[in-house]
Amino acid sequence: MLESLFRPKSVAVIGASSKELSIGNRVIKNLIDFGFKGGIFPINPKADKIRGLKAYPSIMECPDNIDVVHMVIPAKFVPMAMEDCGKKGVKNVIINSGGFSETGPDGEAIEKDFLAKANQYGIRVLGPNCQGIINTDADIRAYCNFTFTMPDPGYISIVALSGGVAEVIHQAFSQMGVGTRIYASNGNACDVTIPEIMAYLGDDDGTRVIVTYVEGLRDAATFMEVATKVASKKPILAMKAGRTMEGAKAAASHTGGLAKEDIATDLIFKKAGILSFKDEGELIQAAAAFATQPIPKGNRVGIITNTGGPAVIATDVMVANGLTLPPLSEKTRAVLTEALFPEASVNNPVDVLATGPAQHYRACLDAMMVDENFDCVFVNFVTPFFVDNESTAKEIVAVSQQQKKPIVCNLMTDRRQWTEVVKILQDGGVPCFALPGEAARAMTALVDYHNIRTRQIGEVKTFGDTDSAGARQILVAAKEAGKSNLPAESVYGILAAYKIPTAVWKTAKDAEAAVAVAAEIGYPVVVKADAASILHKSDMGGVAVDLKDGDAVRATVEKMQQRFPDDDLSFFTQQYLPGGLELIMGAKAEEGLGHAVMFGLGGIFVEIMKDVVFNLTPVTSGEAGQMLSAIKGASMLEGVRGRAGVNQDLIIEIIQRLSQLLTDLPEIREMDLNPLMAFGDQVVVVDARISIEK
Amino acid sequence: MLESLFRPKSVAVIGASSKELSIGNRVIKNLIDFGFKGGIFPINPKADKIRGLKAYPSIMECPDNIDVVHMVIPAKFVPMAMEDCGKKGVKNVIINSGGFSETGPDGEAIEKDFLAKANQYGIRVLGPNCQGIINTDADIRAYCNFTFTMPDPGYISIVALSGGVAEVIHQAFSQMGVGTRIYASNGNACDVTIPEIMAYLGDDDGTRVIVTYVEGLRDAATFMEVATKVASKKPILAMKAGRTMEGAKAAASHTGGLAKEDIATDLIFKKAGILSFKDEGELIQAAAAFATQPIPKGNRVGIITNTGGPAVIATDVMVANGLTLPPLSEKTRAVLTEALFPEASVNNPVDVLATGPAQHYRACLDAMMVDENFDCVFVNFVTPFFVDNESTAKEIVAVSQQQKKPIVCNLMTDRRQWTEVVKILQDGGVPCFALPGEAARAMTALVDYHNIRTRQIGEVKTFGDTDSAGARQILVAAKEAGKSNLPAESVYGILAAYKIPTAVWKTAKDAEAAVAVAAEIGYPVVVKADAASILHKSDMGGVAVDLKDGDAVRATVEKMQQRFPDDDLSFFTQQYLPGGLELIMGAKAEEGLGHAVMFGLGGIFVEIMKDVVFNLTPVTSGEAGQMLSAIKGASMLEGVRGRAGVNQDLIIEIIQRLSQLLTDLPEIREMDLNPLMAFGDQVVVVDARISIEK
Repeated sequence: MLESLFRPKSVAVIGASSKELSIGNRVIKNLIDFGFKGGIFPINPKADKIRGLKAYPSIMECPDNIDVVHMVIPAKFVPMAMEDCGKKGVKNVIINSGGFSETGPDGEAIEKDFLAKANQYGIRVLGPNCQGIINTDADIRAYCNFTFTMPDPGYISIVALSGGVAEVIHQAFSQMGVGTRIYASNGNACDVTIPEIMAYLGDDDGTRVIVTYVEGLRDAATFMEVATKVASKKPILAMKAGRTMEGAKAAASHTGGLAKEDIATDLIFKKAGILSFKDEGELIQAAAAFATQPIPKGNRVGIITNTGGPAVIATDVMVANGLTLPPLSEKTRAVLTEALFPEASVNNPVDVLATGPAQHYRACLDAMMVDENFDCVFVNFVTPFFVDNESTAKEIVAVSQQQKKPIVCNLMTDRRQWTEVVKILQDGGVPCFALPGEAARAMTALVDYHNIRTRQIGEVKTFGDTDSAGARQILVAAKEAGKSNLPAESVYGILAAYKIPTAVWKTAKDAEAAVAVAAEIGYPVVVKADAASILHKSDMGGVAVDLKDGDAVRATVEKMQQRFPDDDLSFFTQQYLPGGLELIMGAKAEEGLGHAVMFGLGGIFVEIMKDVVFNLTPVTSGEAGQMLSAIKGASMLEGVRGRAGVNQDLIIEIIQRLSQLLTDLPEIREMDLNPLMAFGDQVVVVDARISIEK
Repeated sequence: MLESLFRPKSVAVIGASSKELSIGNRVIKNLIDFGFKGGIFPINPKADKIRGLKAYPSIMECPDNIDVVHMVIPAKFVPMAMEDCGKKGVKNVIINSGGFSETGPDGEAIEKDFLAKANQYGIRVLGPNCQGIINTDADIRAYCNFTFTMPDPGYISIVALSGGVAEVIHQAFSQMGVGTRIYASNGNACDVTIPEIMAYLGDDDGTRVIVTYVEGLRDAATFMEVATKVASKKPILAMKAGRTMEGAKAAASHTGGLAKEDIATDLIFKKAGILSFKDEGELIQAAAAFATQPIPKGNRVGIITNTGGPAVIATDVMVANGLTLPPLSEKTRAVLTEALFPEASVNNPVDVLATGPAQHYRACLDAMMVDENFDCVFVNFVTPFFVDNESTAKEIVAVSQQQKKPIVCNLMTDRRQWTEVVKILQDGGVPCFALPGEAARAMTALVDYHNIRTRQIGEVKTFGDTDSAGARQILVAAKEAGKSNLPAESVYGILAAYKIPTAVWKTAKDAEAAVAVAAEIGYPVVVKADAASILHKSDMGGVAVDLKDGDAVRATVEKMQQRFPDDDLSFFTQQYLPGGLELIMGAKAEEGLGHAVMFGLGGIFVEIMKDVVFNLTPVTSGEAGQMLSAIKGASMLEGVRGRAGVNQDLIIEIIQRLSQLLTDLPEIREMDLNPLMAFGDQVVVVDARISIEK
């Protein structure tokens, strides 16, 4: 679909200008300087030539078959120009100009106007208010963009709405000597979307890794669908900003959107198999490693160094991030004891010493490539003036190009003096970093991606013993009654329909009835006041626990009747279950995405330590299991210090049943199971709330 | 003391060599290339000239008054050469050669040998196994070092044992266009120490900020003393590596030390007022900001930007690290509404737009410098080709040089194209970073340092009501009895001597006595089995709580007598205090440093969440207060969800009393107060252990 946008054979610029410092001039300069392989057609009614190229008075008088038109004209002229492009059969329009939906209602109207025309003629629009695209493919060399960084060809593609951040990333690659494949920044994205571009990059053989930056997702469902598909083919590295309220506000101010805190994006990244970053530097460095290195098959790293301290730093960073440093195999140890200087340290890290020549590095690399103790190799390389560092660089390149196990290199040098060493490593595709921590985090990212690719999330289980029709009926009835907070009977009815176990309960209208149902349930019991107005029962004195006999129940009910004069007041009477481990679950609707399901331990774990985890529906058994192990208090589930463990399989099953319930009943806005009481043989919901859209 | 080492007027090189790729040649080349202002004297019996300089057959035949001698000769020749240097009256020797204590006992013997000679003659030794020093002072220009990075003059001084890491940091500054003042890497540091150099740098007017890297501290007490003094004059930025066990092992392997996990270094950094970093990149970037910018007076940042996304990232990072983004004052808002383009965003961040010229940046900078809402200013600056970026750079420099409030700049550009812009900012002393996150973290570091400088830690309080002599007597008695784990009576006796409140207790030898003391204490009581062999009472069935009457006490004691056949068995009988908030305190001796005191909440907070904090003795009231607020579960102390708060003043007092106890009794190796029970009106120790060096 986007082939003609990203691989254009001809580019016209409406608003081409003779003024050097104008975008309408710069785009043409960039196309020429970058060696664009197709035709370039400046459109300007007043000029004969622009940058030496024949200028055309209008798009209508251009040659036919224009793949891409840049529009660098005031917003108000864009709809008319679009009409012309349509008539001319133009395939794609990149609108660099601003003044559209990002500025308010007037601009929004213009955007709607030109978009309608584009749709009518089947023109695809990138932008408006965007930089454009770059394709470094030797057959294309399209620099349809007004920025100033000329990338080397490479394997990393960048896609983002924000031209500012995309360009920062792009510049960083260029500065590192790392190439770019395709660059796309599409601003307001009124037509062509990020997921659409991502899908294109997924199919582009020249793209080995995709980098993206988001401040929020517009069409989360499509993003999720496309990203999941693409991420199964090649790594997607993403960063989300606007994480703090202040950051979200700053984002809203430059996109014209609404400021909101957002946890769903992280959950989408996770579920789609996207490698997520909180720091743009780490993302950039990781991408450089992904561009040329294979994915490791595990987390075991071997380190080769010719200087001590930086290897210590690298070790710290990798170990803190879950990598391990196994010992050398007996064979490797024997080989290296023979090959290296007697003073060298034949351990992991291997220290070949500052005086260690190229062949010592090579011996280490060769040994680690076949040593089954290692999945990846970290090279720490300072360039002493007294050894032949160029040869060492060549050996690292030679082994890296075998593509057996990933290599990252911390190159400690003065890059202005040791230009040849830098060039050998860069041209040879060895990811090179200037600090041990940076290199170590890039290695960590490769291992993290291995973990994502090999994670066993299992299937979404559909329980056959549920009564979705019954649950729906309850929900519809509540909706028709105009209730947004469901009464307890409805809530428990829905839970029962999905076989989510609850503590035995009955409702009663008054004290007599409550005493009767309590006797039926068996003492001790809990009594809870239930009425539409009572939201936080326990804070309002609407909960009494551990009632041991009928007198206690009667007294409690009478007191609550005095406290809550509500007409719809009833008494939710329930089995009291002391001594279990308190859990909580919850769910919140995420627009277009189903629900975010929350799990944690109750009491101080949630209230004080905020120790909860989230996952998007549908939740698989593997994902549910990961939720249990991801909380900081996970060992509580196993049992600690004489306290018995609880039945984790039942918890996992309840999370999955909850997920199925939420999938069947998308109208549920929020849901709380708080608490559940977990034991060795059962896990039961003790209190629950459901709210729906009115 | 170290004046002649860091400001030498003459340098001789024993082991000077004509071979280009030797250290003995390189040191001379470096001295010449760097423009050393003093005399250079190659020592080589076989050469007439080295690098064009007259060579001397021996140090004895050199001119007199040699400030620094480099030794680049095999280890075994060093003692003899040292003897010569002594006779010659040489002031300092830098030993670049290795082969000493880092290699084992033989090398250690040589090190002792030459050091004895050096001491005899009053020669100060840097190294051995070290790179040396650099001083960029225009009067000195000493490059007494064999590395290859030629620094610009600057305000940052670097000191470390590890030449590898020091050089990485040094290279990074050079690459960033940030200058260095003094560089010192002293390897084995057999004589001149890191603290000694740090003290020198503290007195060096040209040094504005000191950067150091450690893998462990040899003489922690001296480090602490010196660092505290120096940090009160100028910022010390430090990084500790070898944080993971694997990292510590890697460190041990290259220093010849022992691998150990180490929390004390962090506590020393904190107590000394050192700004501590876990990442060398962050340290480097922060140092660049400290080198030229004033310390902010608070945490309120104003952001100026000409592009959206990167400002969002910077906002996220700064807010997440405790900075705030206040709104513009009314006046600033009015001024900027007038000064900027109508489409500009006059908020915080201020977006001057990509088209915003230099005078718009200037207007923002001027306004924020006088706006009392801001303590510091973050400039986000992309260089569009269509504005005069050099002028913008000049305006930023002009305002930065007023030194009113600190400025950091995220400069987003192609540094190879916009060389003049980069040069203007660098030469103008504006700290420039290539990524928004990096710049934001550098700003954060300035604010962190402000917080350190203005922290109110209060005084060390000495309680006058303690009986240190009595406590010492108890300890001496236990020591004489050969006990390393003190019996309960001794432990409680020591606590009583320091007026640390404990639950009322008495010991009894048998059931009868236990029943009698229980009656005296008042029921309910706890009974604990006490004997030297019983370390973990509750795990071993040696604790019974909530005993309500004499029968229960008797039965308990009889059961314990059967379980523990120890001759020294007695029964610790104590008031039982249910319903309080469980706390723990502890202490561990840190060699040369007093003790690390630990505080946290008991139960799952410590067992599951590991939510504890540490501080070194002596602990002030301010520090104790910070310990209370630093735990994640701090809100438990205030009271939550209907639970009353506890008396925090009493907890703070107990921490201080414990600190005084530990200061008076340095023989205490480990001490646990676990648990203490805290209430609104009292905080009492319920169980305690003390162990001492045998």
